[in-house]
Amino acid sequence: MDAYSFYLNVREKSPLVHHLTNWVTIYDCAQVVKSFGASPVMAHAVEEVEEMVRISSALVINIGTLTGDFIASAKKAALAANAAGIPVVLDVCGAGATSFRDRMNHELISETKINVIKGNASEIARIAGLEVQTKGVDSSAVDADMKALAASLAEKCGCTVVVTGKEDVVATASSRYLVGNGHEMMSHVVGTGCMAASVIGTFIAANPADPALAAAAGLSCFGIAAQIAMESSAGPGTFKERLFDAIYSLNAAKVSSMQRVTS
Amino acid sequence: MDAYSFYLNVREKSPLVHHLTNWVTIYDCAQVVKSFGASPVMAHAVEEVEEMVRISSALVINIGTLTGDFIASAKKAALAANAAGIPVVLDVCGAGATSFRDRMNHELISETKINVIKGNASEIARIAGLEVQTKGVDSSAVDADMKALAASLAEKCGCTVVVTGKEDVVATASSRYLVGNGHEMMSHVVGTGCMAASVIGTFIAANPADPALAAAAGLSCFGIAAQIAMESSAGPGTFKERLFDAIYSLNAAKVSSMQRVTS
Amino acid sequence: MDAYSFYLNVREKSPLVHHLTNWVTIYDCAQVVKSFGASPVMAHAVEEVEEMVRISSALVINIGTLTGDFIASAKKAALAANAAGIPVVLDVCGAGATSFRDRMNHELISETKINVIKGNASEIARIAGLEVQTKGVDSSAVDADMKALAASLAEKCGCTVVVTGKEDVVATASSRYLVGNGHEMMSHVVGTGCMAASVIGTFIAANPADPALAAAAGLSCFGIAAQIAMESSAGPGTFKERLFDAIYSLNAAKVSSMQRVTS
Repeated sequence: MDAYSFYLNVREKSPLVHHLTNWVTIYDCAQVVKSFGASPVMAHAVEEVEEMVRISSALVINIGTLTGDFIASAKKAALAANAAGIPVVLDVCGAGATSFRDRMNHELISETKINVIKGNASEIARIAGLEVQTKGVDSSAVDADMKALAASLAEKCGCTVVVTGKEDVVATASSRYLVGNGHEMMSHVVGTGCMAASVIGTFIAANPADPALAAAAGLSCFGIAAQIAMESSAGPGTFKERLFDAIYSLNAAKVSSMQRVTS
Repeated sequence: MDAYSFYLNVREKSPLVHHLTNWVTIYDCAQVVKSFGASPVMAHAVEEVEEMVRISSALVINIGTLTGDFIASAKKAALAANAAGIPVVLDVCGAGATSFRDRMNHELISETKINVIKGNASEIARIAGLEVQTKGVDSSAVDADMKALAASLAEKCGCTVVVTGKEDVVATASSRYLVGNGHEMMSHVVGTGCMAASVIGTFIAANPADPALAAAAGLSCFGIAAQIAMESSAGPGTFKERLFDAIYSLNAAKVSSMQRVTS
Repeated sequence: MDAYSFYLNVREKSPLVHHLTNWVTIYDCAQVVKSFGASPVMAHAVEEVEEMVRISSALVINIGTLTGDFIASAKKAALAANAAGIPVVLDVCGAGATSFRDRMNHELISETKINVIKGNASEIARIAGLEVQTKGVDSSAVDADMKALAASLAEKCGCTVVVTGKEDVVATASSRYLVGNGHEMMSHVVGTGCMAASVIGTFIAANPADPALAAAAGLSCFGIAAQIAMESSAGPGTFKERLFDAIYSLNAAKVSSMQRVTS
């Protein structure tokens, strides 16, 4: 796998990536897409989500600051994406923190077709049915083999499952990629998980043939940029700005020498 | 025209600039106003927008993440501003992306008095009646003379029209300013367009006598700061932070030597 | 008082700090909590606020971009916190700017138990009953002894009152702390006041025995980080990023040599 070729497709196609996301990291989700050379749009009004989806190449839903109205719009957007053959990424942000989140995630996953379910370890464990309590939107420790759990959830839902963490797991019923790029500092910055979902949406938008491979390539590029950003960062504040810089300046040499994706 | 004198009025009067804006770039809209030395306030509750408008010196409306409720508040705020003689800037964010946006922009422009309509090329083309499709909130290519289009829209609406781009166009029925300041990096940063609307609102708040001239002066100062910021930026992340620094540190020498405003 | 020991408790316990806050500075409120080593969560849906509060160690309410629905959620969250013995911090953002804000603050303070009321000078003066007009969310000049006013409001409400400014005042009916840390640049950055409320919530979550002392310790650490951040900042943009870096890198030597808390 050559992550750089996936990245080049993002730069060349500059796809429109529609988001219904949370109010905490909405700017960073947009800026990460833009730094990669694509076009983000954030629009959640029930009156326009279907029309916006139809001009987009991917839909990213993140339930971080969900409300009832927001979920109604998200369902409408997802169904419009399904009808038009546009891939849908769902960040199950905070799954396992409250029963409302669990119920809304369940409704989204059962009433619409989600192509990629993405979360941290305890969020994905919760979606897979384990009795875990997520610490707000931060992962709690999970006593389970996340690779097996992701594969089994992927098979059950007929989709790609991504578990972000020290090593990212990308699983389908029949394939698996492990992404070893990234840096521990990401866990001290609010929004790196949300940005990961936007990166996945962006890479799938430009590389629709194999969503799991595109997701792995995107996470690898994102993680490489994080490693580069750390070379000139003094903490979580400067790190986030340098991360956007590093994404913007990725090149073939950096990506091919630093890429760490295994099966 | 001496852009610096307009900037000095902002510093000295420190006007309150009320915003009803989007959830993506709301922080940056506030910080750009504050960096210029004015006071931003963001308040969209229908119960208080009129009262907040009345203590403000300008109102900036940006429909980026509009909903029906948001537009109802925006209309109420604009009408209160009209009644009190407070200038209203409308950023027609995403005009031409969906019919809902087009309809809401039309309602705002026809039911209230907008003093400055601001957008990128395809947004303004759409407001002027052309059949263009905006790419989310990013401009698509427009096959039209934007200077003529802006002037004709300005005449039709009886207001100032601003088209941001490589060269910003500020047009009224009888005057025109072209602002050549700025840097290409601005197009890789989410929110520079939204910030431009906030800058316009801030400069008009402190220089109400000639809105078009104040808008041009504000855009020139904003663009000069962008050029200065690029001297020490490594990409879109550091650029945005240095932009706030550069705005905060503008002085007479920088502005007068770098100002590029023509007719 | 040794502010560092309070900080160490934050690092070691890493408490979950629940927020119902505004859409302008929501990211910064989250990142300041995370930079200190704790876990922020932002969730305002009426369906889940009670459940989220119950797994948290503090609740921070900030009414910056309030709506009727938001206040309904905030009340529900505060009552759930009260029932569970979880401390509640209220940032009375914009008190004195509109009558709607004043009414909503009054309802929150009279219908629920607020443990810490925090604001700038004109906001607190307004809550204390003075006829002041806040300039949006920026303090206007107040012709009153803020130390006496804070103490009298604290006695009346039976809570801790914090007035942020050049010197922060932390008052209860029987005790008072003055925090001399911080830097003037904070007043040029949108959100430092909101972040202060999140810092107070974080420190009280990890140090529940004496809320006023914990608040003073938190404000001192926050201010020390600001002073350190200024050593390598060129303006409000870089300052905010360096502030997160400095918080993340606080240590015993820095805090004990720079701490300025008096009675």
